[in-house]
Amino acid sequence: VTGKGLSGRPSPGALFGAATRGDRRALGRLVSMIERGGEAARAVGRLSFPRSGQAFTLGITGAPGAGKSTLTDGLVGVLRATGLMAGVLAVDPSSPFSGGAILGDRVRMQSHALDSGVFIRSMATRGHIGGLALAVPEALRLLDAVGFEQLLVETVGVGQVELDVAGATDTTVVVVTPGWGDSVQANKAGLMEIADVFVVNKADRPGAGAARRDLEAMLDLSNLEGWRPPVIEAVAEDGQGVAEVWDAVMAHRDRLAGPALQERRRHRLERELDRIILRRIDERVGDRRGQPAYVAVVEEMASRRVDPYEAADRLLEVAAGG
Amino acid sequence: VTGKGLSGRPSPGALFGAATRGDRRALGRLVSMIERGGEAARAVGRLSFPRSGQAFTLGITGAPGAGKSTLTDGLVGVLRATGLMAGVLAVDPSSPFSGGAILGDRVRMQSHALDSGVFIRSMATRGHIGGLALAVPEALRLLDAVGFEQLLVETVGVGQVELDVAGATDTTVVVVTPGWGDSVQANKAGLMEIADVFVVNKADRPGAGAARRDLEAMLDLSNLEGWRPPVIEAVAEDGQGVAEVWDAVMAHRDRLAGPALQERRRHRLERELDRIILRRIDERVGDRRGQPAYVAVVEEMASRRVDPYEAADRLLEVAAGG
Repeated sequence: VTGKGLSGRPSPGALFGAATRGDRRALGRLVSMIERGGEAARAVGRLSFPRSGQAFTLGITGAPGAGKSTLTDGLVGVLRATGLMAGVLAVDPSSPFSGGAILGDRVRMQSHALDSGVFIRSMATRGHIGGLALAVPEALRLLDAVGFEQLLVETVGVGQVELDVAGATDTTVVVVTPGWGDSVQANKAGLMEIADVFVVNKADRPGAGAARRDLEAMLDLSNLEGWRPPVIEAVAEDGQGVAEVWDAVMAHRDRLAGPALQERRRHRLERELDRIILRRIDERVGDRRGQPAYVAVVEEMASRRVDPYEAADRLLEVAAGG
Repeated sequence: VTGKGLSGRPSPGALFGAATRGDRRALGRLVSMIERGGEAARAVGRLSFPRSGQAFTLGITGAPGAGKSTLTDGLVGVLRATGLMAGVLAVDPSSPFSGGAILGDRVRMQSHALDSGVFIRSMATRGHIGGLALAVPEALRLLDAVGFEQLLVETVGVGQVELDVAGATDTTVVVVTPGWGDSVQANKAGLMEIADVFVVNKADRPGAGAARRDLEAMLDLSNLEGWRPPVIEAVAEDGQGVAEVWDAVMAHRDRLAGPALQERRRHRLERELDRIILRRIDERVGDRRGQPAYVAVVEEMASRRVDPYEAADRLLEVAAGG
């Protein structure tokens, strides 16, 4: 990498050029810049954005222990057989309690470590609002811009953050295991909203058929428009069903192609825009702390004269007036 | 309940009066109003806020299956022996995958179902930004205002939402189990930030001592100011250690009493204020959709001429100008 800035460190532009020429270390540093946010991240974004928009993006989500990493590993194998370049982001937005799982799983992905057509990277939350939800699409555009044609994003769980991340891809695979339905009662609808393809993984275990029928019954009851998510049984560890999952993903991609895909991507950009606006305003709210109007209204809350909602209205009036 | 509104349904004011006189059904309806948000929720908040600020609030959090409900149940038993009124909120901000767990655990809490000094209520996410993080403190103030002196909030996991919820209490208990450390690698620091008391539950299982030493070692390495969280072994199911946990909670409360507690509560109100401001602005951003400036900038993004960050800046300029 040449083209160092005044600080002696390579500039985003120099790193971007190197990454385009296949320098994986430069690419890793650009992803780190995106994770950290700030001006360098903006510079990476400005370089990536106009060059992106070609890659197909696939999200893979599900509960911890469902075998997402193994399935992702298998899918990378299938798509590498086609000669396409594959980028994988492993995203863990979850709690300290599950923080280790995805790191442990990374080891498995090492089967592609020597393949120069595969780039694998973990991304972790930085704690601030929408951090990952903003960094993931930016990282996807970067990988897209430097030449990766197939992008896979693996996330743990399907809470709000995961839904946001899953919303950043063209197609979403939801992975469940036999028996999953026993512990899930009220919120199955959340899965219906994001899944384009269902995988019942570890299908050699008892209850796989029941899990499949359960999903099919849910789909029967859902108000599906056009595409009905197929439910595929797999044993990713042995490679069973992995090719079928990939075929289903490709079928969904073909179905999406054209106006539907453009519409989906446009909608995704809108949500990203909303999120950025929210973040910007959040920063402004943060800046407001310590200023006289803020301190005064907090004092009134502490003495129970003004409740937080009224306090918010007052500060927003001040902001609108300024 | 008397004092019905024009709609024939009881007004928040009438329900609040009834709840203050011990009507649990009225109290439950008020919590539902808070969950739904909107004008009725605001009315409940206006009634509660000036009458709140007396109750001691305790958060109990940890991974699914750590035995939080059983411990909570035991703590309620201990504090009921003192004659104090106890309110319990069971909060599940988590994904569809774990959605059922807390509902199942509710059954156990039935041991207090006939005790008129205990009110138990589950709260679920409504999906919108900060929904639970806003509803939980509002519900705590309601319970406080109608006479509950000890409030317990049980949450699953310690992701961002759980951290927000945990931040809504005076004292936080983090529950782990033997072997928990094996699956947690990078993010233990997140636990250190929120825990005032650690409980190693199911301590009759192998590895309890190791889990305890692990926590103590983490505490040795942490930059603690003043209070060092005690680590207590418990077998909540048999009642073992529950009284010790309660003693530790009381010790922390006593330590907090006075200026430190006031400071903590003031800081909490500030964070709530920030969250409300953010929500309000989020609603305004939502309103902006479909307007000409928004549609135009989305079009420019879709054609890759303007990236999302630049688009956000443009719209915020428009907003600041209007």
